[in-house]
Amino acid sequence: MTEVVNLTTMEVDALTDVEGGLNLTDGHARLVLTSQQADIVARIPEMFVEATRRPFPEIELAAHKAFLSAIGQHSAPVGSGRILSCYSSTLATDIVARALPAGATVAVLHPTFDNIADLFVTRGLKLVPMSEEALLAQEWPGEPVSAIVVTLPNNPTGLITPKGHLESLAAHAARHGQTVIIDASFRGQVRDAQYDTYAVLDAAGADWITIEDTGKLWPTHELKIGLLAYSERTTLPIERAFSESLLAASPVVLQLITELAGDWVNGGYERAGALVERNRAVVKETIGQVGLKLADPDSQISVARIELPVDGPDSELLYKEMLARGVHVLPCSPFHWADPESGLRFIRVSLARSFETVEKAAQTMAQAYRELTPGR
Amino acid sequence: MTEVVNLTTMEVDALTDVEGGLNLTDGHARLVLTSQQADIVARIPEMFVEATRRPFPEIELAAHKAFLSAIGQHSAPVGSGRILSCYSSTLATDIVARALPAGATVAVLHPTFDNIADLFVTRGLKLVPMSEEALLAQEWPGEPVSAIVVTLPNNPTGLITPKGHLESLAAHAARHGQTVIIDASFRGQVRDAQYDTYAVLDAAGADWITIEDTGKLWPTHELKIGLLAYSERTTLPIERAFSESLLAASPVVLQLITELAGDWVNGGYERAGALVERNRAVVKETIGQVGLKLADPDSQISVARIELPVDGPDSELLYKEMLARGVHVLPCSPFHWADPESGLRFIRVSLARSFETVEKAAQTMAQAYRELTPGR
Repeated sequence: MTEVVNLTTMEVDALTDVEGGLNLTDGHARLVLTSQQADIVARIPEMFVEATRRPFPEIELAAHKAFLSAIGQHSAPVGSGRILSCYSSTLATDIVARALPAGATVAVLHPTFDNIADLFVTRGLKLVPMSEEALLAQEWPGEPVSAIVVTLPNNPTGLITPKGHLESLAAHAARHGQTVIIDASFRGQVRDAQYDTYAVLDAAGADWITIEDTGKLWPTHELKIGLLAYSERTTLPIERAFSESLLAASPVVLQLITELAGDWVNGGYERAGALVERNRAVVKETIGQVGLKLADPDSQISVARIELPVDGPDSELLYKEMLARGVHVLPCSPFHWADPESGLRFIRVSLARSFETVEKAAQTMAQAYRELTPGR
Repeated sequence: MTEVVNLTTMEVDALTDVEGGLNLTDGHARLVLTSQQADIVARIPEMFVEATRRPFPEIELAAHKAFLSAIGQHSAPVGSGRILSCYSSTLATDIVARALPAGATVAVLHPTFDNIADLFVTRGLKLVPMSEEALLAQEWPGEPVSAIVVTLPNNPTGLITPKGHLESLAAHAARHGQTVIIDASFRGQVRDAQYDTYAVLDAAGADWITIEDTGKLWPTHELKIGLLAYSERTTLPIERAFSESLLAASPVVLQLITELAGDWVNGGYERAGALVERNRAVVKETIGQVGLKLADPDSQISVARIELPVDGPDSELLYKEMLARGVHVLPCSPFHWADPESGLRFIRVSLARSFETVEKAAQTMAQAYRELTPGR
């Protein structure tokens, strides 16, 4: 049995590495601001003044409108009171975990970022894995599952649940009285994931909860918002759980998001995407020289999985070897929360870093792998 | 039985009041920036650049050092790895609640802000109230209590646990293997609460956890940090609980706090205190005209309790009457989480507001009270 440390602990280690190693662990955008973004950040002092002058609900509404429309979610319940602004998507996830009935059985996509499973288990929920294969085959779980969690796009694989599949899931959930929970934290990065999922879920008459995140899009150093939206049908005590966790998100951060969302539809999306794709390409090329390949060549999100051949060293070994060379990445076992062994062939690198950082890390990986497999 | 809605829900209602009523509910500083603070806020764009350039641990360490020394906590374990930066003190409290063993019995000061009790109960802990009278009489709870929570200064009463009393509590806890948990969220406002509690607890050999908060000091629109510090003796899985909740606080916010702490020791403390005391005085004078008085005339924190005579209307009634006049305050029953009835004679107003806001609210209270007691 592989010992499973949670992924965030490895990310914390990378962030607090006093030796100053390269950090390619977390999915946050660790980039220099573009000139357009820098212009917006320069206006933060004005946003402080504005936060005192303008009523909070007005500032919040503007941010919801700008962000959700920038990522194609035109049917999100903006202005209905059913979108809550949280400090982060993690906190939004925990609020959902708390609002679900203790002891309920929840199906969660597998693999996916371990934090979702951890938060749900800590709140006393029972989990069953739903594989990406099952999702693609539209095999939806029945009794005793009362809620189904889909990460869209999935992290780390980049898999995007196709619209028709979500329609099928929504219809199934409506028939069986299940809640569909979508974690759309990475959606802002990928146009293909920006079809209007609120419209799909409402059309099927499903009960749903959706978590959106600004934290993966912009290099705003944790000044971010996790949105927690829920359907008119939802009877869970979400507002009570929210009020236990926070009073309100920052009106300064909400204004920042309004502005950055405006930039996102004015070329920001394309600028960020180009950088990620350039980084993905250099990883692919560099590791290809030693026989390694991208596990998800079609993924468009800002992280990439690398697949290790079955007859070679596993990702735990490669992870440690890279750590010894001062490069932090993530072994994928913890993403496979229900079956860590099945993640041993994969390693994840973040692409939302400078080109130089990603290139150097890929070179280190190739070199480490070569030395781990001398006979090849 | 009085129906008990949690306090944060009432604060959310006040914050999102579309009619634009006066909000004297939450303890956050809702003030215009002083010129010194505005100069600091003007440098936030530079802090963005700095956050990319400087290693995170260095930025975090500087903030811990500046903030804890500004509030007299020279023995706090700065640099030991045992101070965690959270998005808020509420999140820090929830991390503690999660790390305590499920089913444990915890003594919590009574009355105090209801959120502490709510978060602990939600995490499966059993609570017993410890009255302010018991604290002042140094009557400490024994078995089966395994942790004792003291809010210092207390909210809403402003009571400051004297140093000798904390020494007694620490010795008791060390003898009985209990953990002392201090919520020091309001400490920054009051010099008398700034004796070095870390030194007291360590000297007694006690196991302790302390929560500090920057959120009550400065009008930074929720750009704040809750610090979670713990003793060398603590064996609770605090780091694991932290890693489930967040990766890291914002390095921009940490820099902001370093700067504001610098201002705090250079006159900022006195400037803020003078404003609060001017507001307390106008409340005292205005409500005195109708026979109402401050419940805690010696309190120095930025909220004040008003006591209603036993033979008149209770605070729920006065609360509703003020709400009808567009002024949001807090009835005190929810602070008395173990015995809501005992809070019915008190109402809380926040003083960290502009003088005009506080004066107008006090006038409204006096008028409302006069009309509720026509025969007096």
